[in-house]
Amino acid sequence: MSEQYEILFLSGGASSQFFMVPMNLARHEDTVSYIDSGSWSSKAIKEAKRFCKVEVAASSQDLNYSYIPKSFKIADNSSYLHITSNNTIYGTQYHSYPECAVPIIADMSSDIFCRPLQLNRFGLIYAGAQKNMGPAGVTMVIIRNDMVDRINPDLPTMLNYKTHISKDSMFNTPPVFPIYVSMLNLQWLADLGGLENARRRNEEKAQLLYDEIDRNGLFAGVVAKEDRSLMNVTFVLNNTENEAAFLDMCKVAECVGVKGHRSAGGFRASIYNAMPLDSVAVLVNVMKEFEEKFG
Amino acid sequence: MSEQYEILFLSGGASSQFFMVPMNLARHEDTVSYIDSGSWSSKAIKEAKRFCKVEVAASSQDLNYSYIPKSFKIADNSSYLHITSNNTIYGTQYHSYPECAVPIIADMSSDIFCRPLQLNRFGLIYAGAQKNMGPAGVTMVIIRNDMVDRINPDLPTMLNYKTHISKDSMFNTPPVFPIYVSMLNLQWLADLGGLENARRRNEEKAQLLYDEIDRNGLFAGVVAKEDRSLMNVTFVLNNTENEAAFLDMCKVAECVGVKGHRSAGGFRASIYNAMPLDSVAVLVNVMKEFEEKFG
Repeated sequence: MSEQYEILFLSGGASSQFFMVPMNLARHEDTVSYIDSGSWSSKAIKEAKRFCKVEVAASSQDLNYSYIPKSFKIADNSSYLHITSNNTIYGTQYHSYPECAVPIIADMSSDIFCRPLQLNRFGLIYAGAQKNMGPAGVTMVIIRNDMVDRINPDLPTMLNYKTHISKDSMFNTPPVFPIYVSMLNLQWLADLGGLENARRRNEEKAQLLYDEIDRNGLFAGVVAKEDRSLMNVTFVLNNTENEAAFLDMCKVAECVGVKGHRSAGGFRASIYNAMPLDSVAVLVNVMKEFEEKFG
Repeated sequence: MSEQYEILFLSGGASSQFFMVPMNLARHEDTVSYIDSGSWSSKAIKEAKRFCKVEVAASSQDLNYSYIPKSFKIADNSSYLHITSNNTIYGTQYHSYPECAVPIIADMSSDIFCRPLQLNRFGLIYAGAQKNMGPAGVTMVIIRNDMVDRINPDLPTMLNYKTHISKDSMFNTPPVFPIYVSMLNLQWLADLGGLENARRRNEEKAQLLYDEIDRNGLFAGVVAKEDRSLMNVTFVLNNTENEAAFLDMCKVAECVGVKGHRSAGGFRASIYNAMPLDSVAVLVNVMKEFEEKFG
């Protein structure tokens, strides 16, 4: 961790950061910018609107969030640009981050530590633990020192980042067990070879699955290829009548949670850091079997 | 649980309720009343002042919080009366609750389930888990339905009690492990004979220790006898020069955490639900040995 940043472990999930970010970093009269790339972005926007003027710099809602917006427009006086680095429901992920003059704030809840962290690209990063870090109940916040200087005075004590910075995240009793298990999990990740190794493993897993989606004539990917997520692989059946049959075969093979979110339909395989390559191979084999049976 | 109440399990500790209570239940122009019986009351008062007009209905600060205020004054238009049912640092506890015309809100973090709950006396009860319920990271909130009707609209989603009521505390991913372990612990308490049994066990433990404090000429209690806590037993040495020697003897006997909080001085034995009678007897024996050596 660079000396330039503070790292916090706060109670609760990423949803609490949806209001803590604007509450701490924007005044009522300020404008802040958000890129709307999916459900979680939309929720962050909704909460920010309670505190200041929100400008949606870009949105991919026009195509049901099937891509990451590449061009965007930010007001000169915007306080920050907020992005959601990975969109769990739709299966898109930023593979290069926006270039802009204002500090970037990222919700990395669903892809933190899936690859090396480009820390110096961000003014603030937050991530709920329960996808790639540890058990539910704690959120990591990494905040650059110049952002700390902007924090509003006179916030409720527990909602002020400065409170937690000054007490090393122990102003009150922190969520000890979720933090402890996160430490064990991150130690495991380090022992495996750190974030470069995590990237290699995650790319290998994702490639295996996307290759089958592209090869197998019965399936199709649903998002822009260049924005495909390493964490959440979304796909559909060309013949949707066979969806139930495919899910039954997944169930027999003990592939769970493959049904897509209701907002996106189809299927979604979440292959976070903890998921081994072998388990992805099981799903790919089910897809091949399905092709033999229904192709 | 009566149909009249909702029960919530929220992320974080009781400190978050210090601002959520006034934020949800009072408007800016409202007056709310607090009884100041110790450090946690004072912190709750400080946070409430950010949201509305706070009237301190009574305080025992005049005698270093060594008693529970019995008389108090509440404005006719007060929205609620807030009390801290047990004061961990000073070792006082309410043994009968205030009689008043406005709803009573209690922070029961350090004595919830130490005895039968007089639920119908309260409009809202909150309690961080980590004293008598389970691991740190979750707070229980019990709220009466008529209080729900008062909740302010237009709060940040995660800070509005209604959000959590409508989704059975699962609006976002809750702190699963702390909630699960709380369930196991409460099951243990129920299997032992429930809250009547908890009261019997806690009274027996406290009695054993207070009897020794009163019998042993070298020690003295520091709080009003009628307000002595079942959970945190505070006491001092009449000759403070021997404090280090007593703490050394405690350490040898593996009684840990006996040193009093710096705000109160002396000693404090925390004997929450999980502490067995035998462990209290160990401390009492150390006090007797100390008497033989230094008496």
